[in-house]
Amino acid sequence: MTQGQSDTDQPLVDAVSDVLSVDAMGGDQGPATVVAGLSKFLGKAPSARAILHGPEAELKMLLAKHNLADRVTIRDAADVVKMTDKPSHVLRHGKKTSMWSAIEAVREGSAAVCISCGNTGGLMAMSMLRLRKAEGVNRPAIACLWPSRNPSGFNVMLDAGADIRADQDDLLTYALMGASYARNGLDITRPRVGLLNVGTEEHKGRAELKVAHELIGKAAEKGEFTYVGFIEGGDLPSDKIDVIVTDGFTGNVALKTGEGTASLISELLRAALMKTPLSMFAALLARGSLNRLRKRIDPRRVNGGVFLGLNQTVIKSHGSADATGVAAALHLAHRLAQSGFSDKLAARVASAASLAQDAGQENETNGLNTNTGE
Amino acid sequence: MTQGQSDTDQPLVDAVSDVLSVDAMGGDQGPATVVAGLSKFLGKAPSARAILHGPEAELKMLLAKHNLADRVTIRDAADVVKMTDKPSHVLRHGKKTSMWSAIEAVREGSAAVCISCGNTGGLMAMSMLRLRKAEGVNRPAIACLWPSRNPSGFNVMLDAGADIRADQDDLLTYALMGASYARNGLDITRPRVGLLNVGTEEHKGRAELKVAHELIGKAAEKGEFTYVGFIEGGDLPSDKIDVIVTDGFTGNVALKTGEGTASLISELLRAALMKTPLSMFAALLARGSLNRLRKRIDPRRVNGGVFLGLNQTVIKSHGSADATGVAAALHLAHRLAQSGFSDKLAARVASAASLAQDAGQENETNGLNTNTGE
Repeated sequence: MTQGQSDTDQPLVDAVSDVLSVDAMGGDQGPATVVAGLSKFLGKAPSARAILHGPEAELKMLLAKHNLADRVTIRDAADVVKMTDKPSHVLRHGKKTSMWSAIEAVREGSAAVCISCGNTGGLMAMSMLRLRKAEGVNRPAIACLWPSRNPSGFNVMLDAGADIRADQDDLLTYALMGASYARNGLDITRPRVGLLNVGTEEHKGRAELKVAHELIGKAAEKGEFTYVGFIEGGDLPSDKIDVIVTDGFTGNVALKTGEGTASLISELLRAALMKTPLSMFAALLARGSLNRLRKRIDPRRVNGGVFLGLNQTVIKSHGSADATGVAAALHLAHRLAQSGFSDKLAARVASAASLAQDAGQENETNGLNTNTGE
Repeated sequence: MTQGQSDTDQPLVDAVSDVLSVDAMGGDQGPATVVAGLSKFLGKAPSARAILHGPEAELKMLLAKHNLADRVTIRDAADVVKMTDKPSHVLRHGKKTSMWSAIEAVREGSAAVCISCGNTGGLMAMSMLRLRKAEGVNRPAIACLWPSRNPSGFNVMLDAGADIRADQDDLLTYALMGASYARNGLDITRPRVGLLNVGTEEHKGRAELKVAHELIGKAAEKGEFTYVGFIEGGDLPSDKIDVIVTDGFTGNVALKTGEGTASLISELLRAALMKTPLSMFAALLARGSLNRLRKRIDPRRVNGGVFLGLNQTVIKSHGSADATGVAAALHLAHRLAQSGFSDKLAARVASAASLAQDAGQENETNGLNTNTGE
């Protein structure tokens, strides 16, 4: 709390779990949209505060406009990571950027979670450099939420594209991290985990998938999740599972394919209803129902890819997010911050190796469960 | 024409291109559905005939019911490949199955294309064993049609799941085969080919994708297609491309993810419209428009995964296909049969190696173009 943005009468740990570090720059729609989203979020989260990173003069004006000066601290940062910057460039030349500053606030303990709309590759590279991978994690992953038939309305899928490769041990780590995220982000006590493959039969798929199938199955009991085995692409929106484990290449293609299919169907539905005067009248009558449907599958509601496997939590908001989308990412960040997610996850994955070995280390595991409170 | 099922007054080549070899067994809904689909198809294709494989007594009754005895020849086969049979089992014990018989009729030249609703792995294994891979093909692929914003309404995607791996040379072969299929199956003179990746920037993706990117780019001119470069999952239903090239693991996940997303949205739309009396009334008014939409995205309309890279063409119909779905697969088969697709494709891929080398073999290539008439 070195910046003096918190009420020092409050206990320190509570204060930090209410502070989000927000990169104002790097989104397609500029800082005005980020501040508008922040305003929406703060309006519904009375205890929350933010540290906002970007050019001070511009941000000051935007905050004044939304009357947020007392709940948001500005940290001046002159540079911006561009959408086209390669990760290697960002690491070499990024120290004066708003993204770097936003990560730094989390690293030094001034805020609990970092949120940025900027370049994904740059954000991941910078986060890995400054926050470091958690013990036991070889490849961090990006977890996204997938609209589903679940009671919560969502499944968790990881990796959505942090790394294009994943071996059997990475897939096991993804299972543990995804289960922990489902518990803390979606309130699912005993998440059901599935491994994405081209068929549900045990003989199908790549060699590393068959080994991961064994490893995840063995880790389920101590990891406090249920392993449902191999699942297929058609199961992604199903209520058979809460967590979908896959490598970042497949996950990224699946995510974008799902989004592309949903957008094609919405477009065709709109065109179908605008075709005749009768169908236009019908659309008017069904407006309430269609709006509910639109809201149900609105990608802005599920905005926020969570970087898992670092020592702190970073959330990537869609580059094209509007104020509603930014607010959704901030709500997710706040929820994870308040649950103490970063520490719980770190404890989970640190034990991944021992879980996989299934080596009867009962005492250690019991101790872990008590510590994490998961 | 050893079976005497063709009119021997016609030239042999014309006759065979009108004959389809149909496996009556192995679909989830049994032979009655296959024969109903065959009847629908034959009703709209007056020149076509079929050889139907399965238990003679049962098929005879079904054909009589649909009045098809004069246009369909039965080949008796007592056994059936089950959906749960592993490919290795099918190869060892499958000689008396209707699937084997259906492939055999194509192999011996009695029919132009083989169609089956049975077990995909078994059908591919048996087809590779009996029909053999075409010269220049290392891994055959399954091509499926993807609903898109294209004028034709569809893109071609391959591999949809014949093989879980594909190296750079396989991906080049897929590009050539996919372009040839788009020309003959969708009437697109100069297909636009895209390579599926996690981003459109050249530095992204796995090593073999970067090499394939080079190879396909160099082969485009002589292969008479346009290479648009890397595409993402969101581009699958776009009108930027006609042919999507990817490995069978990614393709299978993408296909099933797209189908799963479409089915989730349809279900939610139905639920939204059935929610209130007003929305139910609206749905009634918009019935015509909604039916057109349903038809546009109906998976039965795009039924038929085409096995590419064998010496003959085999089409896999969905196991759960109803009569409409079976008829769609038969129409596709007939169209490919009449275009002389198998021979054209074989000529294309035989030249893949020389195309990739880009070695200025102008004479050879010119000769090829004349021969294939593509």
